Amino acid sequence: MNPLQEYAEHMAQRSRAAAVQLALTSGAARNLWLSRLARELRARVTPIIEANQLDLAAGTRDGLDAAMLDRLRLTPERIGNLASAVEQIAALPDPVGEVIEGGRRPNGLQIIKVRVPLGVVFFIYESRPNVTIDAAALCIKSGNAVILRGGKEAVHSNSALQQILTETLAASSLPVDAAQLVSTSDREAVGHFLRLGQLIDVTIPRGGRSLIERVTAEARMPVIKHFDGICHVYVDESADAQMAVDIVINSKCQRPGVCNAAETLLVHQEAVARLLPRIAAELQSRGVELRCCPVSLPLIPGSTPAAPIDYRTEHMALVMSVRVVDSISQAIEHIREYGSAHTDAIVTSNLAAAALFEAQVDSAAVMVNASTRFNDGGEFGLGAEIGISTDRFHARGPCGLREMTSYKYIVRGAGQIR
Amino acid sequence: MNPLQEYAEHMAQRSRAAAVQLALTSGAARNLWLSRLARELRARVTPIIEANQLDLAAGTRDGLDAAMLDRLRLTPERIGNLASAVEQIAALPDPVGEVIEGGRRPNGLQIIKVRVPLGVVFFIYESRPNVTIDAAALCIKSGNAVILRGGKEAVHSNSALQQILTETLAASSLPVDAAQLVSTSDREAVGHFLRLGQLIDVTIPRGGRSLIERVTAEARMPVIKHFDGICHVYVDESADAQMAVDIVINSKCQRPGVCNAAETLLVHQEAVARLLPRIAAELQSRGVELRCCPVSLPLIPGSTPAAPIDYRTEHMALVMSVRVVDSISQAIEHIREYGSAHTDAIVTSNLAAAALFEAQVDSAAVMVNASTRFNDGGEFGLGAEIGISTDRFHARGPCGLREMTSYKYIVRGAGQIR
Repeated sequence: MNPLQEYAEHMAQRSRAAAVQLALTSGAARNLWLSRLARELRARVTPIIEANQLDLAAGTRDGLDAAMLDRLRLTPERIGNLASAVEQIAALPDPVGEVIEGGRRPNGLQIIKVRVPLGVVFFIYESRPNVTIDAAALCIKSGNAVILRGGKEAVHSNSALQQILTETLAASSLPVDAAQLVSTSDREAVGHFLRLGQLIDVTIPRGGRSLIERVTAEARMPVIKHFDGICHVYVDESADAQMAVDIVINSKCQRPGVCNAAETLLVHQEAVARLLPRIAAELQSRGVELRCCPVSLPLIPGSTPAAPIDYRTEHMALVMSVRVVDSISQAIEHIREYGSAHTDAIVTSNLAAAALFEAQVDSAAVMVNASTRFNDGGEFGLGAEIGISTDRFHARGPCGLREMTSYKYIVRGAGQIR
Repeated sequence: MNPLQEYAEHMAQRSRAAAVQLALTSGAARNLWLSRLARELRARVTPIIEANQLDLAAGTRDGLDAAMLDRLRLTPERIGNLASAVEQIAALPDPVGEVIEGGRRPNGLQIIKVRVPLGVVFFIYESRPNVTIDAAALCIKSGNAVILRGGKEAVHSNSALQQILTETLAASSLPVDAAQLVSTSDREAVGHFLRLGQLIDVTIPRGGRSLIERVTAEARMPVIKHFDGICHVYVDESADAQMAVDIVINSKCQRPGVCNAAETLLVHQEAVARLLPRIAAELQSRGVELRCCPVSLPLIPGSTPAAPIDYRTEHMALVMSVRVVDSISQAIEHIREYGSAHTDAIVTSNLAAAALFEAQVDSAAVMVNASTRFNDGGEFGLGAEIGISTDRFHARGPCGLREMTSYKYIVRGAGQIR
């Protein structure tokens, strides 16, 4: 057997064994581990930062850009925030054992549906080393074992963090194999893990489009994935002016590099004269470049014509595509045609328009008079999130602890037969 | 482009368009269609049976065995039952639009999680032509468009049924492409559909292991699948004698060819003398062949030694593997090692034993003092089922209408921004 294949199988088998043990632990035991992990992170800031320095030095040598280096960097403050995040995860309710629903059947059988962990999670991520801790905390809190595959840029940082994971798991009497780190940066290794559909229950890739496409193509197990966030704000005929300005600005500008930031502004033709110049001026005053349809272009000084591809682009920057639509139906049609079913918002004061938009826009989150930026596990009250799914299967939108679980049926009888 | 690939893409695109329309229809409109479908099935018994005769004649010519021919055969009674099943599906609550949960966030946003259809379902099945109607009824009731890929043995029957689907959809003002039938029996066609991960939301294969393995390997979209049902009944030390006999007999003999029938009997060593001879005699009197471990073998006249493979085999016949265990923990360990996490039962009068079994057996359904045969959509109160999933992802156990849905978040605000 190929040594990488053997390595993957061996690691996955240990992970499977750890998952079986972990599923039987109490929520209290898992929370005690989380508290201990937070404490040790705070206690070991110095060795973590020393390891991180090795990665930063290598990254500088390899010519990583400033943004990449910043993502890679751990500081005492960032480690403190990471420890606090772990404590927040500890404070969340235990999803394992939660009774989802249940009742009694006419024949007297009591049937209840109870959450159980998914099992073994293969988590693939890129440079940010804090994800190592976040992912392990979320997976183990929800009773899952995790195989962590970090980026090669962060190899020293991840290894230092992994050591803390292992030591705190052992000290908490939890299976040490519950959080394993793939120690080879060989890309081929990932392929071997992706073939282990019998041992790994779900793969979660977090990174660029090429990573996610590769994982989708090769995985022999389910994948929780996140493609583009091409989010829209539609300003309806009846929109309140101030609300429209606030929501468009917030959706576009508050954090333009994230998936729930808006990329396209749609404006009802009857609202154009009243609202578009003001919204456009506010956007431009914040440095947003506007790429406009033929109707809006002459109305906005300093704007440029939109190419068709602009409406299909996740700009992830201070760039916004603008289109004037004839009707709410055309707005909904545009969102269906060009959007990515991530997050889409309407600003309106018309009840029928709100109802139509809610019913006909089939996105993970449909916002009525609220910023697209609210599509987020924390904002939804899920606590932490492991990602935002753009799939329809198993989990859609923000994935928190519950989305890391399956369920089983428990059927209690008194001798019933068919 | 390869003509089969073109065929698949074209059909899937029409299905996608139908799904978009269908998601916007009312439950009442979908139920009216179901009623009309039931009526037309009853009205067209003669042409359906004529088409079925062509398949039966071809099957006889091709040497299908008696069991296969029986599965293929439609009779006036079977068509009547099919129409009744469609009416029962009409009577079930509409899953689309169901509010799963919701509430208000501290910032005043109301967030609700609402069921929506999955979208486009690719359904692959074998000889039984009634599945054509069952699957279309379940998919369309839950707002999904379906692409039906039946077996080549049933090509004439399926085509007659498909014609009724199309005509009733048109007469009910629902999109006619909501139920399309793949008209080529070319196996290569399936491969082209399985690659259309952007157009098809889920594939459901129903058939033998080789079909399911092929689909799992090739599919570029999620799969709801069903592998083995290696189900156990564990008779605990404290089991009531009559209850143990009833549950073992029912689990094994009521319908031995189905997935929730029991394949292995585990008996606590302290219950052997009291219960095993009686249970064994009752099983043998019903024609069950017993394959026994070294401890049970000498106690059961007429039994044969179990080979290790017997404990991993879904016999699907009047054959049962038997093993005496030292303890409930050994029973749980056996189930984990040899079972398929489908359905496993304990017979006990001890509360701690019931609790341990419930907690530690991680199967889709864990039965306490009830027959394994109850793991079924109808028995669970789900109404009809499209299959029983042995996966942990998205849906586990019986899959009814709700399991054919996804959800979206609707967020209602009054101008909130972050």
